[in-house]
Amino acid sequence: MLLLHLSDVDEAAWAAAFTEALAPYPVVRRSDSFDPAQVRYIYVWKPKPDAFEGLTSLKAILSLGAGVDALLKHSALPDVPIVRFVDADLTQRMSDYVVAQVTMHHRLFSRFQADQRARRWNQLYPPSASESTVGVMGLGVLGQDALKRLAALGFTLRGWSRTPKELDGVEVFTGEDEFDAFLSGTDILVNLLPLTPETTGILNYDTFSRLRRDRLAGGPVIVNAARGGHQREADIVRALGDGTLAAASLDVFETEPLPADSPLWDIETCYITPHVAAISDLKSGVRYFSQVIRDHEAGEPLVNVVDRNRGY
Amino acid sequence: MLLLHLSDVDEAAWAAAFTEALAPYPVVRRSDSFDPAQVRYIYVWKPKPDAFEGLTSLKAILSLGAGVDALLKHSALPDVPIVRFVDADLTQRMSDYVVAQVTMHHRLFSRFQADQRARRWNQLYPPSASESTVGVMGLGVLGQDALKRLAALGFTLRGWSRTPKELDGVEVFTGEDEFDAFLSGTDILVNLLPLTPETTGILNYDTFSRLRRDRLAGGPVIVNAARGGHQREADIVRALGDGTLAAASLDVFETEPLPADSPLWDIETCYITPHVAAISDLKSGVRYFSQVIRDHEAGEPLVNVVDRNRGY
Repeated sequence: MLLLHLSDVDEAAWAAAFTEALAPYPVVRRSDSFDPAQVRYIYVWKPKPDAFEGLTSLKAILSLGAGVDALLKHSALPDVPIVRFVDADLTQRMSDYVVAQVTMHHRLFSRFQADQRARRWNQLYPPSASESTVGVMGLGVLGQDALKRLAALGFTLRGWSRTPKELDGVEVFTGEDEFDAFLSGTDILVNLLPLTPETTGILNYDTFSRLRRDRLAGGPVIVNAARGGHQREADIVRALGDGTLAAASLDVFETEPLPADSPLWDIETCYITPHVAAISDLKSGVRYFSQVIRDHEAGEPLVNVVDRNRGY
Repeated sequence: MLLLHLSDVDEAAWAAAFTEALAPYPVVRRSDSFDPAQVRYIYVWKPKPDAFEGLTSLKAILSLGAGVDALLKHSALPDVPIVRFVDADLTQRMSDYVVAQVTMHHRLFSRFQADQRARRWNQLYPPSASESTVGVMGLGVLGQDALKRLAALGFTLRGWSRTPKELDGVEVFTGEDEFDAFLSGTDILVNLLPLTPETTGILNYDTFSRLRRDRLAGGPVIVNAARGGHQREADIVRALGDGTLAAASLDVFETEPLPADSPLWDIETCYITPHVAAISDLKSGVRYFSQVIRDHEAGEPLVNVVDRNRGY
């Protein structure tokens, strides 16, 4: 039996889709009448404190979100495997966001917007893509896909991750020791890291001040498409104010929705989107997790299982 | 002998670079003392009315710009081949511009900017790239390169040109007869056409009103990276005002610099850049045209020669 426990999304729509995809396998919602001891899988988004009570036969927790940082902090998380959502559609949408922000800043958007407001015709030629270096933090599925698409556009690329990786056409830096070298050659910094104790607050003033300051490129830029917990918003305000950062694209925030009194709203070089970079599409999610359940019921091992020690 | 005749750019810098690249072949400027009858090649940008006087041995006109529409209107243009600038660096920069504008609009930039100004947290998920159709007018070197890069990002693509073309992964439409069919499935319209009598004013209200109106995509958008003569600016103002267009990115204008009293400056959904999409880079230009001259002096045929009947 699959139990759905989804907050803030249309749980009924997901239930109908899973019921159809998995039939005759039983699918239930919290509001249905069912025996908790029969539940083998639970599909969660923002689970309540009592979400896992009585689930004595639980085989796996399926997470709607690609990030599991909040789920791992649940006070009564059972000791069963957690399966993350890894999906081509979600990956595509995340890359769509990243590429749009990177190319916008690479073409000096803020500079030309300021000129337009002043009705100023001031010719300045942006560097070509190959003259700009994009640095991606986080080299999992999302980071690798973003890099692949940025490579097709001709950007010079570097990446940074906790563990050593080899990626074609990307200069890869590893761990704390190489973080400074990574930053010092990066014009546009893209964050796609998982949120862990080590990466919390990594987008801070000290990090910003170590980015490359290239005249042609118009100054360092950050793009955060991962988690609000990665960023120190007071530091972003300060860095945009004193020129340490030329611009910032933020899709996530320390508190969401972003409070109406946040100074970020009014900064012209801060580009805010309301956590919409990528969504777990219902169709893709149902297809993916139905396959996970069918495979596991047929005796196959689970895929994309979260490593609780790493935190992702 | 190569004569340089360049207005509004640093002619001295080009002369120094050509002198070094072609040595010992003679390179002169208008201000130098030389025998016009010795000039075999003239390198021009915005040539004056008397530019070609006395050049009785002229073998070819070399054009700094990729577009030759203005040059073809010169009142005393000699009947010798005109060689256009076709260069990987210029092509890359043009694609940089096109991709930045297309991805920005695809991600509903104007909508999120309006929300930010109102401090409004309003979640709306942009379509994925494959759900948006980009239509490129003009399938020469620039149009094909832009399409190749947009393909790597996952967009659905169509193209339109005067003569039939076959392009992998692009639905191609040809000529006046298929223009309506082309427009009716296009969400984001990119203009990379040469400016000819047939294409003058092609970006007009009637064209805009025939674009696809897809709810998900946020409304039709145009991107003009070619020539100001392609667009009717009064029609763009009207279409942005009444919702026929959701946004416009314009790098070129009917009159340049764009006059301070143009209403375009103040329209928030009109994104103005001062004709900087792509520049003929000095290094690339000298490399390209030095090769043209050396090859031609060695008896090779000229490449990228303008067809005066077509106009490009």
